[in-house]
Amino acid sequence: MIFGSDNWAGAAPQISAALAEHSAGMARAYGDSDLDARVEATFAELFQHEVAVFFVGTGTAANSLAMAAVGRPGGMALCHRGAHMAEDECGGPELFMAGGRLVLLDGAVGKIDPDGLKKELARFDPPFLHHGRATALSLTQSTEVGTVYSIEEIRRLADMARALSLPVHMDGSRFANALVHLDVSPADMTWRAGVDMVSFGGTKNGCWCAEALVFFNTDLAADMAYHRKRAGHLFSKSRFIAAQFAGYFADDLWLDLARHSNAIAERLRKGIDASGKARLAWPSQANEVFFIAAEGVAESLQAAGAAFHRWPMPHDVEGEAIYRLVASFASTEDDADRFIEALNDA
Amino acid sequence: MIFGSDNWAGAAPQISAALAEHSAGMARAYGDSDLDARVEATFAELFQHEVAVFFVGTGTAANSLAMAAVGRPGGMALCHRGAHMAEDECGGPELFMAGGRLVLLDGAVGKIDPDGLKKELARFDPPFLHHGRATALSLTQSTEVGTVYSIEEIRRLADMARALSLPVHMDGSRFANALVHLDVSPADMTWRAGVDMVSFGGTKNGCWCAEALVFFNTDLAADMAYHRKRAGHLFSKSRFIAAQFAGYFADDLWLDLARHSNAIAERLRKGIDASGKARLAWPSQANEVFFIAAEGVAESLQAAGAAFHRWPMPHDVEGEAIYRLVASFASTEDDADRFIEALNDA
Amino acid sequence: MIFGSDNWAGAAPQISAALAEHSAGMARAYGDSDLDARVEATFAELFQHEVAVFFVGTGTAANSLAMAAVGRPGGMALCHRGAHMAEDECGGPELFMAGGRLVLLDGAVGKIDPDGLKKELARFDPPFLHHGRATALSLTQSTEVGTVYSIEEIRRLADMARALSLPVHMDGSRFANALVHLDVSPADMTWRAGVDMVSFGGTKNGCWCAEALVFFNTDLAADMAYHRKRAGHLFSKSRFIAAQFAGYFADDLWLDLARHSNAIAERLRKGIDASGKARLAWPSQANEVFFIAAEGVAESLQAAGAAFHRWPMPHDVEGEAIYRLVASFASTEDDADRFIEALNDA
Amino acid sequence: MIFGSDNWAGAAPQISAALAEHSAGMARAYGDSDLDARVEATFAELFQHEVAVFFVGTGTAANSLAMAAVGRPGGMALCHRGAHMAEDECGGPELFMAGGRLVLLDGAVGKIDPDGLKKELARFDPPFLHHGRATALSLTQSTEVGTVYSIEEIRRLADMARALSLPVHMDGSRFANALVHLDVSPADMTWRAGVDMVSFGGTKNGCWCAEALVFFNTDLAADMAYHRKRAGHLFSKSRFIAAQFAGYFADDLWLDLARHSNAIAERLRKGIDASGKARLAWPSQANEVFFIAAEGVAESLQAAGAAFHRWPMPHDVEGEAIYRLVASFASTEDDADRFIEALNDA
Repeated sequence: MIFGSDNWAGAAPQISAALAEHSAGMARAYGDSDLDARVEATFAELFQHEVAVFFVGTGTAANSLAMAAVGRPGGMALCHRGAHMAEDECGGPELFMAGGRLVLLDGAVGKIDPDGLKKELARFDPPFLHHGRATALSLTQSTEVGTVYSIEEIRRLADMARALSLPVHMDGSRFANALVHLDVSPADMTWRAGVDMVSFGGTKNGCWCAEALVFFNTDLAADMAYHRKRAGHLFSKSRFIAAQFAGYFADDLWLDLARHSNAIAERLRKGIDASGKARLAWPSQANEVFFIAAEGVAESLQAAGAAFHRWPMPHDVEGEAIYRLVASFASTEDDADRFIEALNDA
Repeated sequence: MIFGSDNWAGAAPQISAALAEHSAGMARAYGDSDLDARVEATFAELFQHEVAVFFVGTGTAANSLAMAAVGRPGGMALCHRGAHMAEDECGGPELFMAGGRLVLLDGAVGKIDPDGLKKELARFDPPFLHHGRATALSLTQSTEVGTVYSIEEIRRLADMARALSLPVHMDGSRFANALVHLDVSPADMTWRAGVDMVSFGGTKNGCWCAEALVFFNTDLAADMAYHRKRAGHLFSKSRFIAAQFAGYFADDLWLDLARHSNAIAERLRKGIDASGKARLAWPSQANEVFFIAAEGVAESLQAAGAAFHRWPMPHDVEGEAIYRLVASFASTEDDADRFIEALNDA
Repeated sequence: MIFGSDNWAGAAPQISAALAEHSAGMARAYGDSDLDARVEATFAELFQHEVAVFFVGTGTAANSLAMAAVGRPGGMALCHRGAHMAEDECGGPELFMAGGRLVLLDGAVGKIDPDGLKKELARFDPPFLHHGRATALSLTQSTEVGTVYSIEEIRRLADMARALSLPVHMDGSRFANALVHLDVSPADMTWRAGVDMVSFGGTKNGCWCAEALVFFNTDLAADMAYHRKRAGHLFSKSRFIAAQFAGYFADDLWLDLARHSNAIAERLRKGIDASGKARLAWPSQANEVFFIAAEGVAESLQAAGAAFHRWPMPHDVEGEAIYRLVASFASTEDDADRFIEALNDA
Repeated sequence: MIFGSDNWAGAAPQISAALAEHSAGMARAYGDSDLDARVEATFAELFQHEVAVFFVGTGTAANSLAMAAVGRPGGMALCHRGAHMAEDECGGPELFMAGGRLVLLDGAVGKIDPDGLKKELARFDPPFLHHGRATALSLTQSTEVGTVYSIEEIRRLADMARALSLPVHMDGSRFANALVHLDVSPADMTWRAGVDMVSFGGTKNGCWCAEALVFFNTDLAADMAYHRKRAGHLFSKSRFIAAQFAGYFADDLWLDLARHSNAIAERLRKGIDASGKARLAWPSQANEVFFIAAEGVAESLQAAGAAFHRWPMPHDVEGEAIYRLVASFASTEDDADRFIEALNDA
């Protein structure tokens, strides 16, 4: 009943095995090994597109370096107010943008509202020196609140950005969870919908620490090797990330893991809906579940051994709060069933 | 005969095993797991001192964050001209110092010359606004050219810095190799000799990616959690670094691995000395060997299957150059013997 | 009828005279002249408080350096969404904070809403690493939309910040206009109400370029000399700023100039109110006037020779817009009367 | 006998008059006035070349923004070890390069040694990620030690940089002094010799604070408006800089002022040479004079009322030191003669 976060799980056994397999022997360092090259080629196949791929160790690194890639003096990158880069990266994107700003956009259920984006973009068009200038649009897929943009929603936002020549970034720390929910190809969810670069996350879905910054528009990657190296994000034994991805992609493990955690989340959602003791805060689709309950109910669940966090969002009914559950590759049906049982008993 | 670098080796089997052992089960993220806490406590025991420990994934991250910890506006950190942070970190320390400068000091065989340090420190004493101000002294142990500062040498340099209230940093990416060479305790080589913080490296000595920024002067660490997080260097599944260190320290593995690579290097040094085909460029003590040979000799070695790099240092005899060999935990006596054989045959 | 901005005016004759008076003769550079020292002492007298004073050339420099003074890694400074530093400094504060963020607060008529501030501060209390941390509260007095915080309003906001040990900054680019409106002492409007540092502006009120960053909490100024110097904001012939301030303060010129521009603004406000052709957008108190008019009316005024800007704020009545008039020391009653006449004729 | 620095002088009377002339009346702010445009056009005429001109207030701002203009991640700019940007700008260029580095080159009498430049450039060719990359060459004309590069010397260094596509910057804080010494045109000393951008200084030669960053290669200026604005270096009443330059260029005042200060320096050099009490440290050509004397001689001169600085350069004769005299537009022949008289009496 540990639903604290998907990063509380360790590594999937297949990832551990892949690491062990590649731990012996000598290989060129700093990303120049054969294994690095093979895994980079796998990304091109998966996305059906030429790509420039940069392995890094954390999602904050991937997102912040992506913002740096397209940063310019006076630059401002637009993202949702609740995006990970806005809420939980402690100013990393701003640091790597060398003083750029994140412009925070509103929108229901974690998705950027197109009208709000339109209005904000209008501030930068025509350009006005004193305001700074827009340099990127970043979308999170799946969002921080467990929802998933449809392909049409992505395209609509991306088109607005591209009309002003703004690069479009996707924070895909839970890319796989969104992908299997939509049941589309990686190409459909990214470049075909107008996305120029992706922070492709493996960590939350079963790797130790495997993130890749993937550029479809490889012009944007011109300086990335320097950005990554000087930020301390180029690993000498880079193949340990490549090895994780090798295990991740083999036999579609990554999709299976994501389907599993999404299914556990769905099981939780159904159980909550039927419980009468709590209700879903909003309909989520990926591996996160947000529910509203009386504080006493939450305490009762925790007393029964469930681990989860209160969500720091104001809630207007006295004595109630919003709580988050995150299912991971390591969550079991039994975990979910015991949680629902404890809820019904609360 | 692969002596390209110690980071060409993968992970030691015991490190792989430790990782596998800790891959299952749930644990709190971002460094809050029990394992993280246990390994941090191990650092305190090893160093016989209260410490603040911050795990990161690369040596560049550790060094750059150390410089950030003590950086101030107009700040200038002093290090050897050939230090890794000066030569091979692509401006990382300067980035994390938010525009600080590395002041490069000379000195034979990779060690800072005390007279040169004295002269440079005098530029900042009394302080003169326009010059900026000194903020740190960084020593590399073992040095980039395989030499090892004696305890007295460390103390002498550290005392000069401390007389001006400058924090002293040790880049210990090859800490273990120096330690076993000197046959002293970690405390002797660090805080007892005047060192305030260490970039403690595990990667080059058998880990995948395990570095720890260790503060003896914990006041200097006041902002480090924020520095690390916003730079993208706080891992969510931080225990994968803790697990590597757990394996690294168990049964003194780390010392055994370092003794092994030092011994292989010594075997190479003796063979080169006796060969008549090449000569040592300077006496090194840790796991690196630098030799001078005719370019034809180097080509002959490479043709025989040896892998190593030419060292980018000017050499004044026509047709000769300096070459570097690095022994790792994975190097074997057989590797060394075959190399020397090939050298004798060259 | 030029009401484009108060920085469209040149220098007041007394300021020009002061500059000319001090142009001859030798004096120590970089702020070490007798004149610099005398003017710094004047600031202490004016504010009835020990101060650390730093002359700079622009308001953006003063504000950005103030934010730098109190910046910390992961730092976030809170200000009104419409503040100059948020809207019109092109990311300067973020640059000087080395990647810090401005957190934008709402509030009617340009003033920070206390409830909104409370809610935002709660996000940082208790501290949560991933969110970053609050480092300052900045108020603008008079505000960007011509309103003036009462002493009580300042104190209420400052108290909330200080309860969390946050330094309080006042952007006083139109300090004098607010001061004479409130008819209080500089001490009352600043440190007595909880303000720790002020960007004290002379430029908009009759100087060429004279701004002073004034610290009442001189601990906050510990690094400021370095911040200013390395940002290129320490003038060698610093006395040219001191000379302007000498002229500015002599015989209370600065208060007279501000009273004059406020009075012209009041004359405009009354005329607009009485016109029937336009209406005040909100009640302003200092030297700025915001009015709502049909677009045709604005065009008619411009055709008559009036210069002013449309304010980039959405307005919900079709065919109407908000316009801004700024009165300066150089504006005349005749300018105002001719404007109102043109408005009545529109 | 005040030879402390050329920035100890105030403003030349003609500059003061020009400022006064333009102090009245309204004009568009932020560089959009007619006067700004006229003066920018004057720069194009003077240099016989299309230019992009950016007024700033200090030489540190001009130099640092120039380095920012051509900075890239991992970037390193090459300059002389004694250059103002290396010695006296407190890390400003590094700040504005967002963590770039100044690579310090040696060379006699303040001029970069071509062989040293060649060797340093070779480190970056072919590029090696870990080293970072060269982004600019900066020359100082006249140099910090009063010498003047010949056109051929400039061209030789510039050609070496341009062969690697490096932009060439000239720090011309004493541009006029060098120009009248060489008796060539501004075009000859800059773009015709391979210079891409100049920090064109007016302050040291009779203005209050008037510096212009002038780009001949206007592509390099693409982001400069944003760089300058966000650094707080765009003045609202920008015309006060334009006015100074208007006065500076009128009737070749700038050349006259420089010829005057150079002539005073020459008078000092001749007197020192003939004195027998001191000797020139090296032959300088512009408005600075460096002499070697016994410390007692310096004290005797100061007791007689002369003001000048000891130069912080090691000198190997016990009891002697190097001293610097700087002549300005405001220095008189009488000042020089009295100084020499005092020297002879020492």
